[in-house]
Amino acid sequence: MSVAAKYYPDEPTAPVVKVTEIPGPESKKAIASLGEVFDTRPVYFVADYEKSLGNYIADVDGNVYLDLYAQIASIALGYNNPALIEAAKSPEMIRALIERPALGNFPGKDFEGIVKNVLKAAPKGQDKLWSGLSGADANELAFKAAFMWYQAKKRGYNTEFTTEENESTMKNASPGSPDLAVISFKRAFHGRLFASASVTASKPVHKIDLPSFKWPKAEFPSYKYPLEDNTEYNASEDARCLKIVEDLIKTWHIPVAALIIEPIQSEGGDNHASAAFFQGLRDITLKHGVVFIVDEVQTGVGATGSLWAHEHFNITPAPDLVTFSKKFQSAGYFFHDPEFIPNIAYRQFNTWCGDPAHMIIAGAIAKEVADNGLVAKAAEVGDYLYGKLFELSKKFPQHIQNLRGKGRATFIAWDLASPELRNTLLFKLKQNGVNCGGCAEVSVRLRPTLTFEKKHADIFLDVLEKVLADL
Amino acid sequence: MSVAAKYYPDEPTAPVVKVTEIPGPESKKAIASLGEVFDTRPVYFVADYEKSLGNYIADVDGNVYLDLYAQIASIALGYNNPALIEAAKSPEMIRALIERPALGNFPGKDFEGIVKNVLKAAPKGQDKLWSGLSGADANELAFKAAFMWYQAKKRGYNTEFTTEENESTMKNASPGSPDLAVISFKRAFHGRLFASASVTASKPVHKIDLPSFKWPKAEFPSYKYPLEDNTEYNASEDARCLKIVEDLIKTWHIPVAALIIEPIQSEGGDNHASAAFFQGLRDITLKHGVVFIVDEVQTGVGATGSLWAHEHFNITPAPDLVTFSKKFQSAGYFFHDPEFIPNIAYRQFNTWCGDPAHMIIAGAIAKEVADNGLVAKAAEVGDYLYGKLFELSKKFPQHIQNLRGKGRATFIAWDLASPELRNTLLFKLKQNGVNCGGCAEVSVRLRPTLTFEKKHADIFLDVLEKVLADL
Repeated sequence: MSVAAKYYPDEPTAPVVKVTEIPGPESKKAIASLGEVFDTRPVYFVADYEKSLGNYIADVDGNVYLDLYAQIASIALGYNNPALIEAAKSPEMIRALIERPALGNFPGKDFEGIVKNVLKAAPKGQDKLWSGLSGADANELAFKAAFMWYQAKKRGYNTEFTTEENESTMKNASPGSPDLAVISFKRAFHGRLFASASVTASKPVHKIDLPSFKWPKAEFPSYKYPLEDNTEYNASEDARCLKIVEDLIKTWHIPVAALIIEPIQSEGGDNHASAAFFQGLRDITLKHGVVFIVDEVQTGVGATGSLWAHEHFNITPAPDLVTFSKKFQSAGYFFHDPEFIPNIAYRQFNTWCGDPAHMIIAGAIAKEVADNGLVAKAAEVGDYLYGKLFELSKKFPQHIQNLRGKGRATFIAWDLASPELRNTLLFKLKQNGVNCGGCAEVSVRLRPTLTFEKKHADIFLDVLEKVLADL
Repeated sequence: MSVAAKYYPDEPTAPVVKVTEIPGPESKKAIASLGEVFDTRPVYFVADYEKSLGNYIADVDGNVYLDLYAQIASIALGYNNPALIEAAKSPEMIRALIERPALGNFPGKDFEGIVKNVLKAAPKGQDKLWSGLSGADANELAFKAAFMWYQAKKRGYNTEFTTEENESTMKNASPGSPDLAVISFKRAFHGRLFASASVTASKPVHKIDLPSFKWPKAEFPSYKYPLEDNTEYNASEDARCLKIVEDLIKTWHIPVAALIIEPIQSEGGDNHASAAFFQGLRDITLKHGVVFIVDEVQTGVGATGSLWAHEHFNITPAPDLVTFSKKFQSAGYFFHDPEFIPNIAYRQFNTWCGDPAHMIIAGAIAKEVADNGLVAKAAEVGDYLYGKLFELSKKFPQHIQNLRGKGRATFIAWDLASPELRNTLLFKLKQNGVNCGGCAEVSVRLRPTLTFEKKHADIFLDVLEKVLADL
């Protein structure tokens, strides 16, 4: 049976287009009023979440869009999901909201269950977690764990800090505050705080005017498509990029303590790399004692047809730290090696140490995903959608270039010929009742929920074909 | 009428001590079990939030503590507050939880009201906000706003970025990623991410092994107590410290773009400074074009007898950015100058841009604080409590040294003669049914809720006197 039909018996059967000026007049009024106190320039439209249902998001002008953007890839199951409503109404949730605990000092008796429910969806090989508040926060918490682990390898896990270390760190000086780097990749996106922005390299707007750590950027493979026609070129591209990574680790002016990578570079353009490339990174990081961090903030929770995208690659041994956020509605990192728990208490610590309210939602999402086989269903609908898009790309080769995401469920993207064309396409899709997002400069990225089914795909494909014909 | 009695007709009338081994056997079991998947070494006890009420926190062993620590200064009204329960059950809350929006792109129609309810409690002179997720996040978001403002002053607010800036920032190099500093103070605490840890200087454990920005630390005044007997010395201490600040701004090897300070250094020892010192900082920052950021994460929301602690100082003109978190159960910064909104969209941006669920709680707290006059009430009970502690300090001068917080409501602290004595005092208070926290090395800090009344103060004072007599 259709899971969408089970969850959302009243889900709309098609988009509703009330106004084609977007944002519409009601949205514009609301944007102006909110804009007196909050930066509203990036607002597409003001949503009516009460009227949003399943795969459809409503706005205050009465438009109802089929949503393939899903809050920048952050809605796992759809709007007004009955299982999440139940979780949100639970006494456990009310406690988590009104008595938000300092989880490190005074966890409530509920907290063990909350953590273990999230861990039921942990990536293969991971069995512990540390919780944070956003994707950027999760990555920076992972960096902290990585730097402490890296220094412990040099110092000895149980060796006490020296007086010199204790005194120098209070002045932001080495050896207590050592000069260490995290290596990342060109076109990567890992967040927009200061350390996370230092490993981000997808767009200048994320970074300009911010002081940054002088950390190196390796090259992420740029494959030729279709993959099956370019195996030799793409294998040499893997080798070229792996060599750059290892060279940077060996030669960078400060030690490289960790490497962070997305299984698919998402914000930076849906750039894919092979299982061999990821295994190569694992081998290099092991060889040089570099912590291997996989950022699953956008790719995680079933979106690519496995629960965690890096599981497609069967990386052995498993990554050291795997970060999550977005579709899990909460954030943090998974790990397995107990030495990633720093040697003494209060080193990885802060007032809240995460947020049990959103972790309850994560647990409920994990349960629904497992109970309803949503990962396999997403893979199935993704195969269907990819196939149809591949056909469309034959009809509109100028507007569907470098189609990618085959075998990655609905995590699909393609390029247009220019940023202007891409933006026009996204706008016309909205005018025809489909909410879609872009990434990098010329790409369209599809990020529907896990309850996006063949019937939704057909509506999307019809609208897309119509819009492409007019582009 | 007692607000505590109105909110909590069944509030305990005294602590309950079931076990004096803390954590007790049930807590120990729960800690061991949670410890398989989560770092539990800093846990004092496992709480039973269902059984906690008002100013009393229960643990799983049946102990019920009068709580003067309140989740590291984060509970504004008390446990199981009926107004917050109502907010937590509202349809608006359920929507905020299950359809967590990308607030920058698709805010819901509720969001304007949510923001404006928080702004009703904004500090004097502030009328806009940007929302984040924690105190550290709030401070780092404020740094981003400050750096963008600082560079805009040099470049021109509406001047486009140069090609060189756009290209260099992608390599973490200047001029796109400029070397700029934030000046802070020795003993300060502003959070534990990488930029926030770089301005933190209270304890090595917060910072060691983390790479940091090479940012300067000025000196925070160290006053002699009682203040009224040391006015001349303390004024010269203000002058000495202000000179250091200005010298560092003028001579630091990279430009200082912003200054961040707590109205009372909290984690670092409850260190106070005068209104004249804060006005001196405002004058210096204006003179040198440095952004003035006040970190009200721990001091805000009524705890010091004014809604925001820096309002005691009547700083003119108002600070540029004021950060909040903790007692507001949500986080962000307030501001007034529209030029702190960066020149183009998407520069201050991320997926969630805050959290409407916890902002709903903040709005409900703000309303209760205003409707019940809780700031004035906290000031009144604080005066009573300070007076009684001052009397006790005559009886136990070795155990109550440098009593501070007069005229700052219940935001009171004092020193013991050694870290060991301080820790023993805190432990014995727990064994006698009072939960209290420390700060710095030898200080006790009181951080009760805003519904902590004379009757609670009397219970605390009785237990304290008994414990001090045995110390």
